[in-house]
Amino acid sequence: MIRFECDYTQGCHPLILEKMMQTNLEQTKGYGEDEHCENARNLIKEACGIKDIDVHFLVGGTQANVTVISSVLKGYQGVICPDTGHINVHETGAVEATGHKVLAIPNIDGKINASQVQEYINNHYNDENACHTVQPAMVYISFPTESGTLYTKEEIESLYSVCKANNICLFIDGARLGYGLTAYNNDLSLRDICQNSDIFYIGGTKVGALFGEAVVIRNDLYKKDFRYSIKRHGGMLAKGRLLGIQFETLFTDDLYFRISKNAIDQAMKLKQAFKDLGYELFNDSYTNQQFVYLKDEQANKLQEKYVFSFWVENDGKKAYRFCTSWATTDEQINALINDLKNYQ
Amino acid sequence: MIRFECDYTQGCHPLILEKMMQTNLEQTKGYGEDEHCENARNLIKEACGIKDIDVHFLVGGTQANVTVISSVLKGYQGVICPDTGHINVHETGAVEATGHKVLAIPNIDGKINASQVQEYINNHYNDENACHTVQPAMVYISFPTESGTLYTKEEIESLYSVCKANNICLFIDGARLGYGLTAYNNDLSLRDICQNSDIFYIGGTKVGALFGEAVVIRNDLYKKDFRYSIKRHGGMLAKGRLLGIQFETLFTDDLYFRISKNAIDQAMKLKQAFKDLGYELFNDSYTNQQFVYLKDEQANKLQEKYVFSFWVENDGKKAYRFCTSWATTDEQINALINDLKNYQ
Amino acid sequence: MIRFECDYTQGCHPLILEKMMQTNLEQTKGYGEDEHCENARNLIKEACGIKDIDVHFLVGGTQANVTVISSVLKGYQGVICPDTGHINVHETGAVEATGHKVLAIPNIDGKINASQVQEYINNHYNDENACHTVQPAMVYISFPTESGTLYTKEEIESLYSVCKANNICLFIDGARLGYGLTAYNNDLSLRDICQNSDIFYIGGTKVGALFGEAVVIRNDLYKKDFRYSIKRHGGMLAKGRLLGIQFETLFTDDLYFRISKNAIDQAMKLKQAFKDLGYELFNDSYTNQQFVYLKDEQANKLQEKYVFSFWVENDGKKAYRFCTSWATTDEQINALINDLKNYQ
Amino acid sequence: MIRFECDYTQGCHPLILEKMMQTNLEQTKGYGEDEHCENARNLIKEACGIKDIDVHFLVGGTQANVTVISSVLKGYQGVICPDTGHINVHETGAVEATGHKVLAIPNIDGKINASQVQEYINNHYNDENACHTVQPAMVYISFPTESGTLYTKEEIESLYSVCKANNICLFIDGARLGYGLTAYNNDLSLRDICQNSDIFYIGGTKVGALFGEAVVIRNDLYKKDFRYSIKRHGGMLAKGRLLGIQFETLFTDDLYFRISKNAIDQAMKLKQAFKDLGYELFNDSYTNQQFVYLKDEQANKLQEKYVFSFWVENDGKKAYRFCTSWATTDEQINALINDLKNYQ
Repeated sequence: MIRFECDYTQGCHPLILEKMMQTNLEQTKGYGEDEHCENARNLIKEACGIKDIDVHFLVGGTQANVTVISSVLKGYQGVICPDTGHINVHETGAVEATGHKVLAIPNIDGKINASQVQEYINNHYNDENACHTVQPAMVYISFPTESGTLYTKEEIESLYSVCKANNICLFIDGARLGYGLTAYNNDLSLRDICQNSDIFYIGGTKVGALFGEAVVIRNDLYKKDFRYSIKRHGGMLAKGRLLGIQFETLFTDDLYFRISKNAIDQAMKLKQAFKDLGYELFNDSYTNQQFVYLKDEQANKLQEKYVFSFWVENDGKKAYRFCTSWATTDEQINALINDLKNYQ
Repeated sequence: MIRFECDYTQGCHPLILEKMMQTNLEQTKGYGEDEHCENARNLIKEACGIKDIDVHFLVGGTQANVTVISSVLKGYQGVICPDTGHINVHETGAVEATGHKVLAIPNIDGKINASQVQEYINNHYNDENACHTVQPAMVYISFPTESGTLYTKEEIESLYSVCKANNICLFIDGARLGYGLTAYNNDLSLRDICQNSDIFYIGGTKVGALFGEAVVIRNDLYKKDFRYSIKRHGGMLAKGRLLGIQFETLFTDDLYFRISKNAIDQAMKLKQAFKDLGYELFNDSYTNQQFVYLKDEQANKLQEKYVFSFWVENDGKKAYRFCTSWATTDEQINALINDLKNYQ
Repeated sequence: MIRFECDYTQGCHPLILEKMMQTNLEQTKGYGEDEHCENARNLIKEACGIKDIDVHFLVGGTQANVTVISSVLKGYQGVICPDTGHINVHETGAVEATGHKVLAIPNIDGKINASQVQEYINNHYNDENACHTVQPAMVYISFPTESGTLYTKEEIESLYSVCKANNICLFIDGARLGYGLTAYNNDLSLRDICQNSDIFYIGGTKVGALFGEAVVIRNDLYKKDFRYSIKRHGGMLAKGRLLGIQFETLFTDDLYFRISKNAIDQAMKLKQAFKDLGYELFNDSYTNQQFVYLKDEQANKLQEKYVFSFWVENDGKKAYRFCTSWATTDEQINALINDLKNYQ
Repeated sequence: MIRFECDYTQGCHPLILEKMMQTNLEQTKGYGEDEHCENARNLIKEACGIKDIDVHFLVGGTQANVTVISSVLKGYQGVICPDTGHINVHETGAVEATGHKVLAIPNIDGKINASQVQEYINNHYNDENACHTVQPAMVYISFPTESGTLYTKEEIESLYSVCKANNICLFIDGARLGYGLTAYNNDLSLRDICQNSDIFYIGGTKVGALFGEAVVIRNDLYKKDFRYSIKRHGGMLAKGRLLGIQFETLFTDDLYFRISKNAIDQAMKLKQAFKDLGYELFNDSYTNQQFVYLKDEQANKLQEKYVFSFWVENDGKKAYRFCTSWATTDEQINALINDLKNYQ
């Protein structure tokens, strides 16, 4: 079976394991205060083009989301997010477990826009009994989104303007950041992401690392005591250097971007094949997640050789998701494309 | 500098990294549902001598503690633990973050005993207004304890009897389990631990793994839906196989116990040296943590070459902790002993 | 100004204050364990026609909702409710503050139905990664609903069947229960409510009491240790007898139903006037809340003499809410109707 | 039976009920925004001698404690309190339910002092791994304490100095404030309490009201959005005017202080009788709670006519608590004193 059901079916980029081997018996301080973490932090600061940021390494995405969100919000505050947002649908209520309501608003192609946010805030404060409802104090978006779509630079800038104008925090979940930044039609750089958000993270788990997300806090307001929050939410890795070593490797010689681009190249090949072969795309994704409608017989046939995910049923048509990753090979994609031809 | 400040200064046992290399490009399911996890679970069941247990792999100790405790307790219930217990002092209130009070009672050499627990429960239920206080519903202990001491088989059996008699859950934190089971004076086996608790975990982070704790649930009452709790607390590792691979390796050919024993051997050498050289021991530890009083000049001298932790000040005397681990070498211990001679 | 903006603008039924006067210097036990509470509990059991229920008195609705919901749910579980449900929109995230997600589904005229619930549950359990989403374990509805509509007996029975079939709890918020039970077109009795839910409450605050809600737990599963939950959520009134005295009075000589009926009679008079005078109703409410579209000039004129609430804007038309209550007089309603004529 | 087991066995001061009668059919806004609340707030500001304070009315003590504490603390912060503090022992973990650890330190006669607090803070920040422990950010004390003792003006000033020097919040639980301020040996005024704390509350439940606590926030830092916190914790009374009316009455013509003094006068009579008759006092309390050792036969005899509470057992001797209140009469105390003579 060849697996396209997600972007974390394999281990990590070989250079990471190599580096782990080399450093395995070094003795270092724990909890992210070692030299590898320090070095990784510096490399990330450089890549972001901003020195005055705090960088923290956490093991996974849910943990990163919960730690950031609960460290920013006061008890009675909530976080606005698209109804399809990962925190709203796929984290078993981890944000609510910290006492905060997720304020879901309708997504448009996986995204929300500045005017939706402004309207939500206006409605809240125009209510005479505003204190009977959760106060919106943060916006959570993903880049790329859950459905593989991308915000444009203009969209992100508008969102961030609205957030700043209302003194609320913009937080970008970058679990698949590499796959957004290297998409063909993307017009945002890492530096743009950093300058147009208060906090964001650079996903490792889905982009070549064994695990790990690098949380970047640019807004000074949210920097203080963040390590307490990490520890309180069980995110303080004893051998923190493991995270340092991974991000050190990924941010050396542009490895992070080079391997991200492989996923995009493979995904675009697949997308083109879908189009050429007359398969109906579910949406117009330029990132490593491709969504396509399949007839039951097509799906059944393909499932004999490939693993991929059922996404959603629309008017009786079933959409499926195929993910490529940093590790997807030409052989894997070509095999799939061949079979797509057969089951056309 | 040679580091003795904790038992996680180094990476992992080389066999683990080797196995990671070998399996790196395998494609597997995520979230702990792959074959390595399945294999590791079976090896652990065998080692425990009980088939009917559930085994879950979590990344770290705080996460394991919080996930277990919050999945067992109802809102108004709390967990009894020694005042020196890790959950009471070193987890930034992670248990309280889930809404539960830690019911700390005085430790005796790092431990609590059956009659303390029974008395606490009696006091609770004898109070006419019991519902104005947190209901004790769980006991948390560590084996070995935070100060390196060990419960005897009889002590654990008594504790568990009291727990069963009162229908409350006994949970054993085994972050350093290997170092307890291989201690010279220990009379408990892994099977004993398993049979005399409702839930416990086998620590990997401090015993040869890169990271990871294997939570074992023996009591059927606590098995249902545990994976929801893992996800809710951010403990569901995407590439779950990394945990499977590590425990698979550790529980093949008794590796876990063999490397634990190295830590004990080195610690006992160090303890003997302390005694022979006239250093005053802080307590009588048979595990990998050794505690000793040092004069300021001794401490200062040693700190030029070694890293170790200040523990506590008692009547003007300062106690320090030295940890050995699976990775401690003869060279490291001999160097330290030599210097202890010099600064005698 | 005459106030119609809610159903708690005034104190309480005079008989309640009288009884408070009479009993003021009695010395009693605290915390709801006095004879007035005991008597009130018995009167409520009688009214419900079921002896084997637990009755607890809480001060207010948010408290009642939070205490019930958090005592029923496990950490990773959530409560299904209509998106317009009070707990979803008007309690400042009080349910989320206890760690639980509110699982909002689309309301139909303020209500949700059995098949929506069954479908939600099916979708959850059909998801291969169900444990990545919040487990539905409870249904919350209000009778009457936030928009004054009523479930029929058949609708409630269907909902409860689905809940029982799926082993989840049905909880009915009866903050305005009296106004539902005495509505002209209602076909449910108090006994029906009790037999077709696991937990519900009888609202006092909006129906003639100074404050207070009587929570009724019929399902044995949810009875144990409920008083711990009350105390933990700050709902244990020291002078609990105040609640006992109020419900004792309300459930003597059918007072609760008699005064509820006054609100309905006045509301129906108002509704008829709206119709007769050509005002467009927002919905077809048979309870004490009446919703009507007003032109801006009408609203402005009326606001000179009356207080009432803006409800919602639909396609440029603005709907407003007028509430009657146990205390609404003929003079008040007639004055309003007269002015409605003038501003027709 | 005559009840001395607590200070809330009876209803309220008759003037309060009278005022409720008079105002019962007034129509007012809800949620504490009516004129009675406004008037009560002004009267309290006057009594405190400070205009620039926020005053909020909550129903009960646990609610007040939880709402204040959780609105001040960030997630990873905790509240220092004496181990005997109400929040630590008698609120079923209500503070922990909001995610915060109660940092209990040893009481000295029910109190804690400035140097204990400073030492706790020093120890925290001197720990290299401070972020692994809960950050102390607030001090909670009661005036009078749980055991009826009083802080002197100097003690409170010292505590507040330490809090200010460390930028942490001082919060005084004044559930029995009246009984402290009117104690014969007290040297603190209401104004002193207000000037030497960031937040405190004036207890009504135990001092002549039916229920209710007036939370006073003096420090601007903690004023913003407090009403959101009240609502989120279920403390927003719909008919908020009931609280306004009560505090309006209590703070007119010094009623609060006059009725508090009755409790003190009766308690001092009782204390003198204990001494004169050779009963051994448990401690030297000058407030309305008196603690005395009784032999079993004495206790048994007295329990035939009086209700009072078992407090604690010390070296085989049992201490009991007798409470007087605003409502205690000469007849009640004289009856008790007579019987104390008989069972001497």
